[in-house]
Amino acid sequence: MKVFITGGGGFLGYRLALRLLERKTLVGPEGKPVSISQIRLFDAAFPPNPDARLQCLKGDIAEPGAIIAAMDSDTSSVFHLAAVVSAGAEADFDLGYRVNLDGTRNLLEACRKLKTPPRMVYASSLAVFGGKLPAVVDDNVTPTPQTSYGTQKVVGEYLLNDYSRKGFLDGRSLRLPTIVVRPGKPNLASTSFASGMFREPLNGLVCECPVEASTELWILSPRQAIESFIHAHDLHSSAWGANRALTLPGITISVKDGIEALRRIAGDEVAARVVLKPVDRIQTMIRTFPARFNAARALAMGFAADAGIDAIVKDYIASEGIKL
Amino acid sequence: MKVFITGGGGFLGYRLALRLLERKTLVGPEGKPVSISQIRLFDAAFPPNPDARLQCLKGDIAEPGAIIAAMDSDTSSVFHLAAVVSAGAEADFDLGYRVNLDGTRNLLEACRKLKTPPRMVYASSLAVFGGKLPAVVDDNVTPTPQTSYGTQKVVGEYLLNDYSRKGFLDGRSLRLPTIVVRPGKPNLASTSFASGMFREPLNGLVCECPVEASTELWILSPRQAIESFIHAHDLHSSAWGANRALTLPGITISVKDGIEALRRIAGDEVAARVVLKPVDRIQTMIRTFPARFNAARALAMGFAADAGIDAIVKDYIASEGIKL
Repeated sequence: MKVFITGGGGFLGYRLALRLLERKTLVGPEGKPVSISQIRLFDAAFPPNPDARLQCLKGDIAEPGAIIAAMDSDTSSVFHLAAVVSAGAEADFDLGYRVNLDGTRNLLEACRKLKTPPRMVYASSLAVFGGKLPAVVDDNVTPTPQTSYGTQKVVGEYLLNDYSRKGFLDGRSLRLPTIVVRPGKPNLASTSFASGMFREPLNGLVCECPVEASTELWILSPRQAIESFIHAHDLHSSAWGANRALTLPGITISVKDGIEALRRIAGDEVAARVVLKPVDRIQTMIRTFPARFNAARALAMGFAADAGIDAIVKDYIASEGIKL
Repeated sequence: MKVFITGGGGFLGYRLALRLLERKTLVGPEGKPVSISQIRLFDAAFPPNPDARLQCLKGDIAEPGAIIAAMDSDTSSVFHLAAVVSAGAEADFDLGYRVNLDGTRNLLEACRKLKTPPRMVYASSLAVFGGKLPAVVDDNVTPTPQTSYGTQKVVGEYLLNDYSRKGFLDGRSLRLPTIVVRPGKPNLASTSFASGMFREPLNGLVCECPVEASTELWILSPRQAIESFIHAHDLHSSAWGANRALTLPGITISVKDGIEALRRIAGDEVAARVVLKPVDRIQTMIRTFPARFNAARALAMGFAADAGIDAIVKDYIASEGIKL
């Protein structure tokens, strides 16, 4: 079984690849675990010295023909994580559409040309929701994105549904909560602070948080996100039915909750490194993302949330080998 | 004020152009009626001997650069009716995406480059709905298209919303009911019979109806559709808010209701020319289109339905000059 990961050089994509190396199998078309014979990552850039068992291909997903040339014709599993993130797509309208829409269409067309229709797991986002929303968003709420990123993601979901209906591929779209804690550096995502407010203080740095303490987020740990990608892949097609998109379970935390968790785990001095400096542009965008969901469908399908913010932060500290 | 109509050679597009000639004005950016100085139609083909006051440009909407080359830079009003219809887009997947998605994106990009953001009225469709639906569909129901055509239409709506949000244009998407009675010949739309079952018998021909008598449809007359396009254009931007898509009011009729109307108006002999010959492929597709709507939002905004099926059929007979 051959696996193809777009955005494979990114944090989640690369970590998914490592997890698949460790796991060694994915569920195949017969519904049973099959050995993974190839993991190919496609991205514009990769971490230095990637694991030698991974095939890393540099390329531009939006370039016509690039994806089809990069995939073996007997690829059976595709994870589509490549994207220009929220604030990035908002700042550069053309780039966002080029990567997030043209790129997705290129990938769908490449999948359509494979020997057998592959399973495809697509990283969508809770940014498909926005504007006037009920206090708790459930699976019946109509996506009304208030950003170009959210628009591109919901369009991708509709395309995945249509390609799945036509039998060109077997798609599954996951609306990801905000991923916390991402290691490394801040990125262009408007939610970048949601990781930074833990990561920077634990690394001895100040984090300027661009939203108010009461601002709520719907979050998921990287570990649980990776498990969700794999679970989404391994579920039988019939578990998905005609609507291949769902919101992943997460937990709701406020910025204040996060600071208090940091205080409990790492002490007052570390918690004091979070400095609230609301920035209108970011606060406005974040307020359009809902923070409370009823993810009943995903829970019934066996997806799971994290135990709580303390568990997420402790897991980050342990996996990064941070000394308190 | 310059008006640009895609699909301007088609039945609705051309009829809209004639109505604008008669009307002479549209509401301008200041909220007051402004004289129409140019009506330019863009399509792959046109009726023979078009009205000399209309500028008819032949072209391919999906060809990169074709639309921008065809539009004057001070175009202020765009009506986007060009589309590959439902069964056509289902039969030719690539053609459907090329015209209905690439074509729409070309048009949106062309509008973005105009001197001032134009008003754009987009012909969407009730085909954005499908699958398991409530008995009555209202404006809160999430589009779940079961056809490529419906997918392309809902994607177009999302793009129009995003381009409107960014201020590149001022978009308005109308989910059109099935238009009845279309003159001329049957087309590739799966709902073609809905016009054929009136048109052919009134012309002395038999109409083979590919669905059962109990099959219900949500319909709108061509005359009322044209008035709705104009009303959608003339409404102030603030009347639309963030969600620029709505379902137009229509009336629900069953095939049986239609046959009975034909009998009342044209007699038993004419009504007997409707022969029911259900075709699985068509019946299945039609069943995914809902037939009962609560169009509260549209009604509140001043859109109107037809008085009834008898009025629609009588209007068709009068406007086509048919002798009973």
